[in-house]
Amino acid sequence: MTKEELFKNIQEKKSFLCVGLDPDIQKIPKFLLELEDPLFEFCKRIIDATKDYCVSYKPNTAFFEAYGSKGWESLKKTIAYVPKNCFTIADAKRGDIGNTSSLYARAFFDEMGADSVTVAPYMGEDSVKPFLQHPGKWVIVLALTSNQGALDFQTQVLKDSDEHLFEKVLRKTSEWGTPENLMYVVGATRAQMLEKVRSIVPHNFLLIPGVGAQGGSMQDVFKYGANAHCGLLVNASRSIIYASTGNDFAEKARDEAKKMQAEMEVLLKQKSLI
Amino acid sequence: MTKEELFKNIQEKKSFLCVGLDPDIQKIPKFLLELEDPLFEFCKRIIDATKDYCVSYKPNTAFFEAYGSKGWESLKKTIAYVPKNCFTIADAKRGDIGNTSSLYARAFFDEMGADSVTVAPYMGEDSVKPFLQHPGKWVIVLALTSNQGALDFQTQVLKDSDEHLFEKVLRKTSEWGTPENLMYVVGATRAQMLEKVRSIVPHNFLLIPGVGAQGGSMQDVFKYGANAHCGLLVNASRSIIYASTGNDFAEKARDEAKKMQAEMEVLLKQKSLI
Repeated sequence: MTKEELFKNIQEKKSFLCVGLDPDIQKIPKFLLELEDPLFEFCKRIIDATKDYCVSYKPNTAFFEAYGSKGWESLKKTIAYVPKNCFTIADAKRGDIGNTSSLYARAFFDEMGADSVTVAPYMGEDSVKPFLQHPGKWVIVLALTSNQGALDFQTQVLKDSDEHLFEKVLRKTSEWGTPENLMYVVGATRAQMLEKVRSIVPHNFLLIPGVGAQGGSMQDVFKYGANAHCGLLVNASRSIIYASTGNDFAEKARDEAKKMQAEMEVLLKQKSLI
Repeated sequence: MTKEELFKNIQEKKSFLCVGLDPDIQKIPKFLLELEDPLFEFCKRIIDATKDYCVSYKPNTAFFEAYGSKGWESLKKTIAYVPKNCFTIADAKRGDIGNTSSLYARAFFDEMGADSVTVAPYMGEDSVKPFLQHPGKWVIVLALTSNQGALDFQTQVLKDSDEHLFEKVLRKTSEWGTPENLMYVVGATRAQMLEKVRSIVPHNFLLIPGVGAQGGSMQDVFKYGANAHCGLLVNASRSIIYASTGNDFAEKARDEAKKMQAEMEVLLKQKSLI
């Protein structure tokens, strides 16, 4: 999917919502556990219920890997089930030396068929670049994450440049790709940092976790993070997929996604993007 | 495996060699491709050939993931095949927010049965700690890697503490675990940094890539990195497993492992560790 196509989907659906697929066997309704592939069956129903209100799905690979090769198969089926007009993100947070990153890229782009994969920047250029060699595919680099631990290293100030580590990551990695194949993870819980982020990467899409269960504000994210092509994918996982843990989980997920979409529609209109 | 058991194995085998299992379908002998599970069959033969000369095996998960659920099954079989007196490292370089890292820990420790997993520190405390909650299992945190990209972020100097980012990573993460469940990746290509590393984490085991194909010196690594319990696992992957790409690959791998073991035996004797 190109950046232009992604923006077109955002305009058509009046939404920049990404639904995070974290299927947890402890939380999904009991009746699904009797089916052959409970992880996939859960995700399938969530996708059916929410696809009109979101433009992206982000399966977190850990939730599938915990079930070994069977979980890996469920992940592949889940990605294949996502409608073509939704952008798929394999949230894998990979990163290794060059020849190894090439294989991860192959695993997620070719074997899994995902549009994009999340990548950890710690190992530097040769760990990120191999993911950028796949035409039509995207890399989403962790910059400033939404968790408490983000403050341990990402916000350390560097001596030479007097900038935070995450700013260095943005500046450096943006030399390796373009706004057509490179996005960044920036947590909604640090919305006040979004102005800084935008001054470094004005044109790249940002994947924003942390709205919803983690408490970030959609208004702030949009105010400081939106650009002329929207430039945002706001992710919600638990607040949508576990809105109910009963048999009405899909219906409640739909309600929750619809609510977020409505909020997004107002913001997109305010900025004359639709 | 406890730290004491690991050191006992090092003394018995007179070796601190870790063999990296990176099975690449392009490089393994043709006759293996006709068997049902070429990745496992290759690793099995490498393990049979080298197990007397090493104390650890490190399968790199990317080389298995590239083949989807089938590769994942090969990885599980490979880890199960490793003799009990060898320490297994799932080289996965994972790291995510707390609830997700817990699932990765489950994937590698419970589902795969590995003794340890490599973890990327970028996301901080809550991304590392869940891996440390498993008695008898180990976390190996990336500190200073052997690749060129290590210089992009890991060696940046921090303003507050006037130390490199990798030193901050060592200092901070060492508060979260103990030398009984926490090791570090430090590349042999930066052996001159090992004295610094040892001043921060004197008692932890270090996993050292970069000797062999990447050009690091075993003597320097031992000189600056060894401690009273050896404290080193020196990894070699390509230089052993692809010593030959012909039908004699296992024999040549054995020769190469034996050569490295002999070199290690001399060093262990010099330091009176055996």
